[in-house]
Amino acid sequence: MTTTLEILPLAKKVKVRKKIFLSEALRDADVPVSLYCQGRGVCGKCFIEVLDGKLPFFQPGEEELLKRAGLSPAHRLACQFVVESDIRLRIPERSLLGRVAVLDPAIEIRLPFDPVIKKYAVSLPRPEVTTAEAELDLLLRAVKSGPLTIPLAVLQELPLTLQRSGRLITAVVRGGQELMAVEPGDTSAAIFGVAFDLGTTTLVAELVDLASGRTMGREACLNSQTAYGADVVSRISLAYEDSGRAAILRRAVLSDMNRLIRETAASAGLSPVMIQAASVAGNTAMSHLFLGLPVDTLAVAPFNPVFSALPDLPASELGLEIHPQGTVYIAPNIRSFVGGDTSAGLAASGFSDGRTTALYLDLGTNGEIVLRKGRKLWTTSTAAGPAFEGMNISCGMLALPGAIYKVEEDLGGFRCSTVDGAPAKGVCGTGLIDAASLSLEQGLLTPQGQVTTASKTIPLTGSLALTQKDIRELQLAVGAVKAGIRMMLEANGLKAGDLEEVLIAGAFGSYLSVEHSIRLGLLPEVEQRLVRFLGNASLAGTKAFLVSVPSRKKAEETAARIEHFSLASRPAFQEVFVSSLEFRTWK
Amino acid sequence: MTTTLEILPLAKKVKVRKKIFLSEALRDADVPVSLYCQGRGVCGKCFIEVLDGKLPFFQPGEEELLKRAGLSPAHRLACQFVVESDIRLRIPERSLLGRVAVLDPAIEIRLPFDPVIKKYAVSLPRPEVTTAEAELDLLLRAVKSGPLTIPLAVLQELPLTLQRSGRLITAVVRGGQELMAVEPGDTSAAIFGVAFDLGTTTLVAELVDLASGRTMGREACLNSQTAYGADVVSRISLAYEDSGRAAILRRAVLSDMNRLIRETAASAGLSPVMIQAASVAGNTAMSHLFLGLPVDTLAVAPFNPVFSALPDLPASELGLEIHPQGTVYIAPNIRSFVGGDTSAGLAASGFSDGRTTALYLDLGTNGEIVLRKGRKLWTTSTAAGPAFEGMNISCGMLALPGAIYKVEEDLGGFRCSTVDGAPAKGVCGTGLIDAASLSLEQGLLTPQGQVTTASKTIPLTGSLALTQKDIRELQLAVGAVKAGIRMMLEANGLKAGDLEEVLIAGAFGSYLSVEHSIRLGLLPEVEQRLVRFLGNASLAGTKAFLVSVPSRKKAEETAARIEHFSLASRPAFQEVFVSSLEFRTWK
Repeated sequence: MTTTLEILPLAKKVKVRKKIFLSEALRDADVPVSLYCQGRGVCGKCFIEVLDGKLPFFQPGEEELLKRAGLSPAHRLACQFVVESDIRLRIPERSLLGRVAVLDPAIEIRLPFDPVIKKYAVSLPRPEVTTAEAELDLLLRAVKSGPLTIPLAVLQELPLTLQRSGRLITAVVRGGQELMAVEPGDTSAAIFGVAFDLGTTTLVAELVDLASGRTMGREACLNSQTAYGADVVSRISLAYEDSGRAAILRRAVLSDMNRLIRETAASAGLSPVMIQAASVAGNTAMSHLFLGLPVDTLAVAPFNPVFSALPDLPASELGLEIHPQGTVYIAPNIRSFVGGDTSAGLAASGFSDGRTTALYLDLGTNGEIVLRKGRKLWTTSTAAGPAFEGMNISCGMLALPGAIYKVEEDLGGFRCSTVDGAPAKGVCGTGLIDAASLSLEQGLLTPQGQVTTASKTIPLTGSLALTQKDIRELQLAVGAVKAGIRMMLEANGLKAGDLEEVLIAGAFGSYLSVEHSIRLGLLPEVEQRLVRFLGNASLAGTKAFLVSVPSRKKAEETAARIEHFSLASRPAFQEVFVSSLEFRTWK
Repeated sequence: MTTTLEILPLAKKVKVRKKIFLSEALRDADVPVSLYCQGRGVCGKCFIEVLDGKLPFFQPGEEELLKRAGLSPAHRLACQFVVESDIRLRIPERSLLGRVAVLDPAIEIRLPFDPVIKKYAVSLPRPEVTTAEAELDLLLRAVKSGPLTIPLAVLQELPLTLQRSGRLITAVVRGGQELMAVEPGDTSAAIFGVAFDLGTTTLVAELVDLASGRTMGREACLNSQTAYGADVVSRISLAYEDSGRAAILRRAVLSDMNRLIRETAASAGLSPVMIQAASVAGNTAMSHLFLGLPVDTLAVAPFNPVFSALPDLPASELGLEIHPQGTVYIAPNIRSFVGGDTSAGLAASGFSDGRTTALYLDLGTNGEIVLRKGRKLWTTSTAAGPAFEGMNISCGMLALPGAIYKVEEDLGGFRCSTVDGAPAKGVCGTGLIDAASLSLEQGLLTPQGQVTTASKTIPLTGSLALTQKDIRELQLAVGAVKAGIRMMLEANGLKAGDLEEVLIAGAFGSYLSVEHSIRLGLLPEVEQRLVRFLGNASLAGTKAFLVSVPSRKKAEETAARIEHFSLASRPAFQEVFVSSLEFRTWK
């Protein structure tokens, strides 16, 4: 027994079985509507307009949702609508299943919109004298939910909130498990989260609208831990030797994060307590220090972390100043120093789903390398040091306004481009790579890294110049990454020429010159068209963990199946590293 | 394909299918062994000894568990043992499935032993250099558990605990959901919980060994809230009018509870922090005040509570001084003033499973009445006042040493028996009922409650005597219960003679005289053999919630299906109450 649906504005006609829900019929017809509340009929996000055909009676609560949405009486919830006969209908834009793009640039990954926090506005009936039902039970019934955990403070506030709001309240549900807050009135359009990329050198926070999946703002700053040690190893040593120092490192990054929360919230006209969820991606050392975990296991072989995947943790216990009942998801660590930044990046890029032979590089102070061959994945990390982020370089700086991010040859000399076209104040990672590569070409630098000019410096523009020491820092950074890639390829019987794809994540964005990177040996010699830039994939993945909960499970599964390729445990590593210090192309 | 098991010491022979687990075969043979860890092979509680037959190879971890248990090499875990051929085996006493009795007296209810807290001692392997696995993952694998939530503090302690204990640690798992603690060494035999009966007048705490289900100790005290109001209604008024007073009431009962925790723990030689779970049963008002919930909804019609069932709450947030990660289960409220004490009592007595026409009475300061007719259940509560607990009576006292608990006729006068045979200090509820009934018989008292003696008092022993006011208090208490029972029976077309069972719970214990109760009209005129005393069924139920988790779900289901019989909303109530004040038998 079938019947016909005509779906506008798509002008699509489909035959569907009778007696099924319209939401199912639309899904089968490849026009899925939003089932934010899993088809329970309480979120009001799947309204469709009936243009022709029999209009069914309202289901309990449906009319109220319709009025609240300000729609005409010809609208019905697709999830409550049982198809009985031919219908001509229109799907409003707002009811189409939202998917969110998490990576800004070239590679577009769209994930199903299924945010970690959902809100349901409900008008609670007054309890009857005869049944004298509990307020919480009335609320759970209105939200059509099974038992939820509930913080004591929320339970304590429930009666007064109900009283003050004339019983129209919004239930805030986290992960379908916890009734994390109850707000007076209808606040269902205001749901916010904050995503953090906790880099060794740079911190980035992104404010996310969890009602739509849109990014509302982004702020970055230097990780204040940098003052105590430029790289992961030095900070681990510090924290390992003295737990007081570990606490100082923790407070340093926490204070940065809270400042970024205040700044992003203020830019969007919000108060930080309106942010109800956070997610954080950092390498293993960063996440351990942030959580106040001992780094002892990361300080000595086999360098294993304390945790990989974790359930949500309370923001208040962590000291993150968002909503008092807010929670924090920590991106799953993979192995050893390969942490949540990599698992987040892999989630955002879809790298773990691919089947070709490919390389995923996250080039920061800690460099992470993931190799894929068919379905198999290997990973390792390598201590590049902060040169790629412009740090430990005499005139280095983060890629902020005034940073030289691109250097080109110009009449035998250099032409420098700065971020925002501001007067040159320093050089960031991509500018450094360009400058070194051009110097090598022009003979100002030997492949062994010797600066050959009389001044022993490489002038860039104005008074800015690179010193011999700057070049040594770059050499160590390039050598570390190169040695890692070489050993991983070799151990799996692969050559650079076997690579079908090279994805580059990290602060470099798309400004990294592939040509110069190949010339210095940072990247193996591959065709330029095989290289793609992801931008800050860790940040994108961290956002994905907020707006698309299924991405968390996926990241955790990926983290569990990646094989760790330990460079440290391989006797050949030192030799390969030393031989990788030379600036030259390799295949 | 079958094979034969000979099971000693039962000398039982059974034929079983091949290729099934021995634990399943034993369950089918009606000799179930303990499957504390759900057959995951990690708890070591189902060892059996193979006397004849093929001894299988050890499963991973099995040999270590065997050594730790100090058993001979002929023992194997029944849950890991696949039956292949004929076996003659012996089940050690320790491996038989434990069931725990929760009610001490006449009615024995045995529940499956499945405590809320379980401990698993495991020796964690050292992480491998090649895999560098996370410590938490190694632990979850050793416990053969899926993901568990974990408090941040526990995660922070994990590495040091592992280091200090040579990697032999005990995982403490709450409700199969949370890794609530990690303890150094093997502490699996030490698991403790505390069950509270939060009475309007009396508090009782029972310390429970969650490794065996045994009661370790019990302490009682007067509820300090009594100083602020003798009954539920007066305390609700106080808290409703002034939230500062609500906080005072909350602190009063909390301080009592913490003292009882210290006392029960000290008697057993334990520290309070070794208690990892608590459960609390009280009427609706008591549980609301304890949780710091507003009592506004309980102060005005329809007198509905804020919550019925709740998930575990953190003890630290409630201010209960047990283990820092300890949790508290609150017995589910039913409706209006009928609360967790009743749902606990119903769970402990199995009343909700019965099918006869029966009455369940919990006689305390707040009297709860449950009527059963077939599968249907109705409940109501009635404000008896504290007379049954010996309070508000001039020479009244709790049933402590020296309390007159029994009064008999002796040569035309009274012979009084006291608790522990101590010199008479006062009279408790059962003594009061005996004395009033005998006075009625001897003409010292009219059915209307008038004391007819010249002194206007009823002498008991020594200088102890009941005053006219004491009799009025008793009259109100008896009348409230009687009116409640009468109205519930009448509304359902029942007479006292239809009752097939009358169960009496409460502080009275088994000392209540059925004869005297019937003569005063507290109980309807039923045959004495139909009346059974449960003792403190609320306390027994609260204990059940700790040692047998399935009893929680059952209590919640029962609470959800009982119909509320609202006395307050019935116009006839006042009239029935007034006509119930007369001391006389009724049918």
